[in-house]
Amino acid sequence: MTNVGASQSPASSESVSDALRASLKTRAAAVESMLERLIPRVDGPEARLIDAMRYATLGGGKRLRGYLVAEVANLFGGDDTQAAERAYRAAASVEMLHAYSLVHDDLPAMDDDDLRRGQPSTHRKFDEATAILAGDALQTRAFEVLAETATHPDAAVRVELVLELARASGAAGMVGGQMIDMEGEGRSLSLEEVSHLHALKTGCLIRYSAEAGAILGKASADERRRIVEYGRDIGAAFQIADDVLDATASEEELGKTAGKDLAAEKSTFVALLGIDGARDAANQLAQRACDVLDVFGNKADRLRDLARYVVERRS
Amino acid sequence: MTNVGASQSPASSESVSDALRASLKTRAAAVESMLERLIPRVDGPEARLIDAMRYATLGGGKRLRGYLVAEVANLFGGDDTQAAERAYRAAASVEMLHAYSLVHDDLPAMDDDDLRRGQPSTHRKFDEATAILAGDALQTRAFEVLAETATHPDAAVRVELVLELARASGAAGMVGGQMIDMEGEGRSLSLEEVSHLHALKTGCLIRYSAEAGAILGKASADERRRIVEYGRDIGAAFQIADDVLDATASEEELGKTAGKDLAAEKSTFVALLGIDGARDAANQLAQRACDVLDVFGNKADRLRDLARYVVERRS
Repeated sequence: MTNVGASQSPASSESVSDALRASLKTRAAAVESMLERLIPRVDGPEARLIDAMRYATLGGGKRLRGYLVAEVANLFGGDDTQAAERAYRAAASVEMLHAYSLVHDDLPAMDDDDLRRGQPSTHRKFDEATAILAGDALQTRAFEVLAETATHPDAAVRVELVLELARASGAAGMVGGQMIDMEGEGRSLSLEEVSHLHALKTGCLIRYSAEAGAILGKASADERRRIVEYGRDIGAAFQIADDVLDATASEEELGKTAGKDLAAEKSTFVALLGIDGARDAANQLAQRACDVLDVFGNKADRLRDLARYVVERRS
Repeated sequence: MTNVGASQSPASSESVSDALRASLKTRAAAVESMLERLIPRVDGPEARLIDAMRYATLGGGKRLRGYLVAEVANLFGGDDTQAAERAYRAAASVEMLHAYSLVHDDLPAMDDDDLRRGQPSTHRKFDEATAILAGDALQTRAFEVLAETATHPDAAVRVELVLELARASGAAGMVGGQMIDMEGEGRSLSLEEVSHLHALKTGCLIRYSAEAGAILGKASADERRRIVEYGRDIGAAFQIADDVLDATASEEELGKTAGKDLAAEKSTFVALLGIDGARDAANQLAQRACDVLDVFGNKADRLRDLARYVVERRS
């Protein structure tokens, strides 16, 4: 299996295609604008809760998950106004779910992190109670948005989006992974254990993001299987690349506390495979993710670019 | 409007009909058994999370919400094995949602409560991080169960159950109410503000529980409106009765810290209306809840009994 060559040098992040760069920017802006619409400011006593939900959700991040929903939906459903509206609703929903998990992960009883995207984490900006509630309400809103008619006229599509998001993000997915992560601190995990942990903690939601696009676009069973495999592989590659970044990048580049895995004595892919070994593993996953998209031809170019970007990014 | 006379004396809790008592017991056992099935024990590193979810959900509570789902569903859909299975799945889902809210409300950063149903609260039994995650995963599981095919063969019914649960429990419902409650501590609220707070914090989920039964049973628009009004009124009555209990009952009777509203300087119905005034208000709501069910005749007797029980209970 060939490595994605460009990633072998740190300068390689420049090799991300201009087309992907433009596409990421456009879709991130559309996701942002949809989030603005879906979590509008309110007056009255609930204002503080909504403000915290907006603080946790708006204004940044790579929107990798939202991008995947929209780009995969585009592969199947076209990019006309109506299809795009639906895709960005689902994209915003995944981003809300992701944001809730970050708000709760940052809490003092969990990772106790003061910074997120270079800004005070939600419980530092507001307070712990507000952060707990804002996270709770963001999870609820994610399911609510998927269930609303505007997300898709077909109830079977909407309920499948809900079901798969719940599977990906609950005890057998994201939250389960977070639990294993907390329990693993201070003892060494095997490569298998670390892979399982991250498959749940971050992999499931990234995989779901791709799958949601296929659900919206009513992809065939074979197409959906390929999209799921693509999503699973870039999810795994993403986490390995994250470990590499945590070990090599500065806090300024990351916009969050660097080296915190080491400080927390967490078992990482870098600890288990070394930096070069981890980079190789991520590249192989990215390549496999590209290969499984072969049946889609040029239409999947941005998704292939994304697979490379995931392992080549600098932050 | 006639008061429900029996409630005027503390001995009145004995007047709860034998039929309701038996029905509550049967349905609570069925909800418990469904929860057992829906949150099965697991081995492996996720075990602690599942154990905490089970601890927070199983083994008690009045199951008022679950009862409402099942009893209203029975009003429309019959009580055969298949209809009952569906109703108890939705009932278990609401109980999971309710349990998650209690786990998070009890956290040190929120109400900081050590006792729940006479037992250590989840973060005292496990730890804070586990309690946060168990609450998160219980919310997710609630939506997952509703979205699963076994809950109803019609996707439109399932997605409506999801949508209305999300509306009832998110920022415009339960979580919004909890936020207002936190913000209101230490200052006096008007009767209108306290009513709004509780309509969101506890009322919406109780109202939803009744509505879920109507959704499952594909009730007509008028029938559903009546069930919603019934649910709204007993939800309000329930909270007023709760304030009365907090002011009058002992910790042993309640199975949780008594007098905590007073200690937290919370504005309560009792503070605003006095104990007798609060009892009268609860009784009037219970009566109105009974009246709106007139079209259902004898079939709604247990729901009427329940309306009285809500204001007459001792714990």
